[in-house]
Amino acid sequence: MVFLTRRATFSASHFYWNPAWPAEKNEQVFGRCSNRNGHGHNYTLEVTVAGEPDPVTGFVVDLKWLKAAIEREVLNDFDHRHLNLEVPEFAISDSGATIPTTENIAIAVWKRLEPAVKAAGGARLSCVRVYETPEIFAEFRGQP
Amino acid sequence: MVFLTRRATFSASHFYWNPAWPAEKNEQVFGRCSNRNGHGHNYTLEVTVAGEPDPVTGFVVDLKWLKAAIEREVLNDFDHRHLNLEVPEFAISDSGATIPTTENIAIAVWKRLEPAVKAAGGARLSCVRVYETPEIFAEFRGQP
Amino acid sequence: MVFLTRRATFSASHFYWNPAWPAEKNEQVFGRCSNRNGHGHNYTLEVTVAGEPDPVTGFVVDLKWLKAAIEREVLNDFDHRHLNLEVPEFAISDSGATIPTTENIAIAVWKRLEPAVKAAGGARLSCVRVYETPEIFAEFRGQP
Amino acid sequence: MVFLTRRATFSASHFYWNPAWPAEKNEQVFGRCSNRNGHGHNYTLEVTVAGEPDPVTGFVVDLKWLKAAIEREVLNDFDHRHLNLEVPEFAISDSGATIPTTENIAIAVWKRLEPAVKAAGGARLSCVRVYETPEIFAEFRGQP
Amino acid sequence: MVFLTRRATFSASHFYWNPAWPAEKNEQVFGRCSNRNGHGHNYTLEVTVAGEPDPVTGFVVDLKWLKAAIEREVLNDFDHRHLNLEVPEFAISDSGATIPTTENIAIAVWKRLEPAVKAAGGARLSCVRVYETPEIFAEFRGQP
Amino acid sequence: MVFLTRRATFSASHFYWNPAWPAEKNEQVFGRCSNRNGHGHNYTLEVTVAGEPDPVTGFVVDLKWLKAAIEREVLNDFDHRHLNLEVPEFAISDSGATIPTTENIAIAVWKRLEPAVKAAGGARLSCVRVYETPEIFAEFRGQP
Repeated sequence: MVFLTRRATFSASHFYWNPAWPAEKNEQVFGRCSNRNGHGHNYTLEVTVAGEPDPVTGFVVDLKWLKAAIEREVLNDFDHRHLNLEVPEFAISDSGATIPTTENIAIAVWKRLEPAVKAAGGARLSCVRVYETPEIFAEFRGQP
Repeated sequence: MVFLTRRATFSASHFYWNPAWPAEKNEQVFGRCSNRNGHGHNYTLEVTVAGEPDPVTGFVVDLKWLKAAIEREVLNDFDHRHLNLEVPEFAISDSGATIPTTENIAIAVWKRLEPAVKAAGGARLSCVRVYETPEIFAEFRGQP
Repeated sequence: MVFLTRRATFSASHFYWNPAWPAEKNEQVFGRCSNRNGHGHNYTLEVTVAGEPDPVTGFVVDLKWLKAAIEREVLNDFDHRHLNLEVPEFAISDSGATIPTTENIAIAVWKRLEPAVKAAGGARLSCVRVYETPEIFAEFRGQP
Repeated sequence: MVFLTRRATFSASHFYWNPAWPAEKNEQVFGRCSNRNGHGHNYTLEVTVAGEPDPVTGFVVDLKWLKAAIEREVLNDFDHRHLNLEVPEFAISDSGATIPTTENIAIAVWKRLEPAVKAAGGARLSCVRVYETPEIFAEFRGQP
Repeated sequence: MVFLTRRATFSASHFYWNPAWPAEKNEQVFGRCSNRNGHGHNYTLEVTVAGEPDPVTGFVVDLKWLKAAIEREVLNDFDHRHLNLEVPEFAISDSGATIPTTENIAIAVWKRLEPAVKAAGGARLSCVRVYETPEIFAEFRGQP
Repeated sequence: MVFLTRRATFSASHFYWNPAWPAEKNEQVFGRCSNRNGHGHNYTLEVTVAGEPDPVTGFVVDLKWLKAAIEREVLNDFDHRHLNLEVPEFAISDSGATIPTTENIAIAVWKRLEPAVKAAGGARLSCVRVYETPEIFAEFRGQP
């Protein structure tokens, strides 16, 4: 078993806001991140798949395919976008919202990529790591 | 003469939009950056001052002072903000706007820091470098 | 389960010296690190906690809290300090000393942070990684 | 148990080519990597060993020994070499070839280092990570 | 005047060999780089242009144009290529060869890009920096 | 003219202390750096030489020579050392001391390397950059 990782980047805006809370509580819990004009990051994504290298090609997966899958399933919707306003996973409704924290972005990326990797066959998605900054990152490895 | 540099970072949103142009022209010139929901970056700032090291302290400037000056003059207004909507240099008016490109951010940071460095005496501002991403950066070294 | 990591840095001095050995043996085993005047590093710390993101905040832990805990439990005692002379875990006594290798620093940081993370509830400490240089790092993940 | 990692780098050439396929299929599967003049990379290697720190030295392994083992077992044969033409694991024969993909390089490095770490005693080889570029890396952790 | 830089990368093979010298002298002067099977690097290119930001767009140059120019003039010929065997500037003839050192690559990249930047108008090429590894880089700033 | 740079690293301890001042003033001016037990850094050095590439070798200088010169003139005395206690430029005497700030280290490295580069002929020392941390660096380019 070899673990193969492809890194990708996207630039996006977000803010942290719980519509069920008054402004004061949002500011208290989320600090400067609660600014509803949004702020942004250069996110770095590390997508890891696990499998046996194909004995002929030496590939766990074709990295050209993996790069294209990341672009199609994630970057096209996330890059140069406002995560709260334009990415459905983080849409704000009357009943609440999934806050686009690094943790929740990692889960969202996993859910977008996992079916594509499974459909391709041969390898499984092993880990999605998302860096919000070089100092903060989150990993999701699927449900046990 | 020694050139001393302090790095700092801030996270902000922006978009590229000329209010004098129709949407089509904005999209053609600015591409994905014209999305008015905004997108964002982890900006890195490198502020360079030049001067003779003080013979007693060995300092060109006190780096604690320089860090505080960058926070007061720049980061407090730029970090976790939307550059077009919250930073006056990039405000959009009927007559147009200064687009928050990396080039214009470098000039704006210079104009904010240069009076503070001059007032402190002893060293002069030599260069402001702004990274929008690790792949793109702009430098302003003042007017000749 | 999501694994959330916060990076922090500190600058410290140390040397490698076993008081039960003669100087020659210290030099033979520890090489240039046995210089008792000390040398130093910019250490980078990666602290990983594991847990379910809170359904309302999207946080595994509040990163502001985690940053403050790392400062309070570790950085205040380690940063700009001499590890052998000022940090109790590495004090030299007649009976010996715990050498401040990267391995032992990782264990010491874990032991300082683990009770604070446990007391906060909701997430568990998963991993402490310490970089002595970009080329050398050690990880401790607790006792199995 | 502590996991201790030493990073090393080497610069090498390679190409991807299956001698059992016609040129068209090699180009289709391997793209620009199929250029038989070769191209090259600055590879980064991260070698992780796992064990208990020695109570006297604080070492999981002596990093001077580990560095020398990596040089002797891997770098002397891989650095400034053409992997397909000069490294036996990737030699091309009539019956085929093990393609020097990042995946296969990770396995080859593991097989070279594992006996040396085992012979030294005290720690076991835990992981070999190979970066082909900062964007692509593979890990091998031995057979389960 | 603002200095705007775009970074790009390419992976290539090369070797150092002067056809006018016997093998012994090539090995003595060029060391491991004289291996004629070639070795390779992930080169990083930093292309800096200088000019006044356009008052409407805020651009010194359009970075999409600059990226395309670097790809067209440099990367298409250099990436995944063997510099000595496939790039005309470094071709080996009976009368000698321009060795693809980092210094000479910087000059070659400048000569390829300078006419394109000049033809585009508005900004001038200011600097080409080439990293052979993170530890070695060369800059060419044109003839004075 | 090409500017060629070689990077090197060393790990050292230092503190900031003016023997002509009382302890309170040292603490006030130098903050945590005034701790006389010392603290340390992984310093990164970038040494830039300028000259015409040799038409035969393509070298501004032989990088193997430059690396050896940096080791001989600087690293042998600075690496794994306490700058105040072991490097003569920063020795503390009754009449005062040159504080080992990043600025003064850059000047000291220049003064050590400049005669060696001049004696070698063909290229001149152009710049010495010293990083104390990734966030702080100083450059010395000689006297005008």
